[in-house]
Amino acid sequence: MSETTIRHFEEELEQLKTRLLAMGGLAEDRVHAAVEGLVARDAAVPDRIITGDGPINELHIEIDSRCFTMLALYQPMAVDLRAIVSAVKINTDLERVGDLAVNIAEAAKRYLRHPPVKELIDIPRMATIAQGMLHDALDAYVRRDVALARAVLDRDDALDGLKTQVFRELLTYMLQDPSTIEPALDLILISRHLERIGDHATNVGEDVIFMVSARDVRHHAAEGDGGLD
Amino acid sequence: MSETTIRHFEEELEQLKTRLLAMGGLAEDRVHAAVEGLVARDAAVPDRIITGDGPINELHIEIDSRCFTMLALYQPMAVDLRAIVSAVKINTDLERVGDLAVNIAEAAKRYLRHPPVKELIDIPRMATIAQGMLHDALDAYVRRDVALARAVLDRDDALDGLKTQVFRELLTYMLQDPSTIEPALDLILISRHLERIGDHATNVGEDVIFMVSARDVRHHAAEGDGGLD
Repeated sequence: MSETTIRHFEEELEQLKTRLLAMGGLAEDRVHAAVEGLVARDAAVPDRIITGDGPINELHIEIDSRCFTMLALYQPMAVDLRAIVSAVKINTDLERVGDLAVNIAEAAKRYLRHPPVKELIDIPRMATIAQGMLHDALDAYVRRDVALARAVLDRDDALDGLKTQVFRELLTYMLQDPSTIEPALDLILISRHLERIGDHATNVGEDVIFMVSARDVRHHAAEGDGGLD
Repeated sequence: MSETTIRHFEEELEQLKTRLLAMGGLAEDRVHAAVEGLVARDAAVPDRIITGDGPINELHIEIDSRCFTMLALYQPMAVDLRAIVSAVKINTDLERVGDLAVNIAEAAKRYLRHPPVKELIDIPRMATIAQGMLHDALDAYVRRDVALARAVLDRDDALDGLKTQVFRELLTYMLQDPSTIEPALDLILISRHLERIGDHATNVGEDVIFMVSARDVRHHAAEGDGGLD
């Protein structure tokens, strides 16, 4: 690439990062709002989340289009190529997180039709962890920070542990009082949606590690595998 | 690209398709086996599925690596570029289907520790639909067949309908007899895993439509959007 072309590429890469961060911010906000509405028992919130996925869907299409244009125009190599293909993957993960916010809102909407099963403590805790993981994973992408990406991967176990705890506790309620079965099922679903948000953050973290080091850390593969540098 | 380069690219694209089909076949087989083991109440099957994800994970890494190499070596344009980036996405979807087969096996393993809740009819039906969708979506990718890809998208509603039916029926069992709560929960989870396999097949179908026509059919976007041709 000529110097001018490199400058243009760098500028567009910066814009791409900004758009990914915007999309990540939207996805995080929607997850946060869905869980906050659930905890506050505010029945207006779920409907707002369920119908409000326009902006995130528009960003999804825009980011994908930017990536294809950049691949076609600049034909980037090595880490730049991996940065763009990673952006395509991260974009998909963020769109799924947006979908999961809708799924959480749908379950919350059903849940709020029943009296509360219990005080919600672990579910908001799961939401905070999942949001934090997503936030840090995107930050790691923007800053090409492998250490931060690895730290995201480590937090997945905490989320899994809370999911199991939520499940066991709710199962006890269901066994003791059948009237809690239906609402408790929705809380179990919500905890699984939050776990999956953590999985998407983990995917982003793995993409960052691959982008920077050209090492595929998925499936605990042998180190130094699959590089193009 | 020179004529020789074009021939090499075409050859590698054929190999890539073959590998994606192999991976799709593995993923389908594992879903099928997991559900068959559940229906036949064969406790040996889940363990075999849970520990047997090595080959699919190896293919996942190999296919990703092939895509990156092809992007870097050939710098393909237009439909060729979209074919490779689609392969990266489809590869991710297939790997998730492999994970979902493990999730189904884990739930089946727990389910088989209890007496059967009911005869399983809708769950194997869901598995057949999901497998068929995945199979056709990959076929559509290989043959660049937009009509077939669209037909995959249409079948998602049947899967959603069955999922709701499974849920309602199992809820009735749970309300009538608390001893069914735990195993019924695992059947509900399995039906959701199968629904997600349908979602992944839908993603693949959407990628095929975008690859061939450069039209983004996700989120029902305006037609003719985002093309590079």
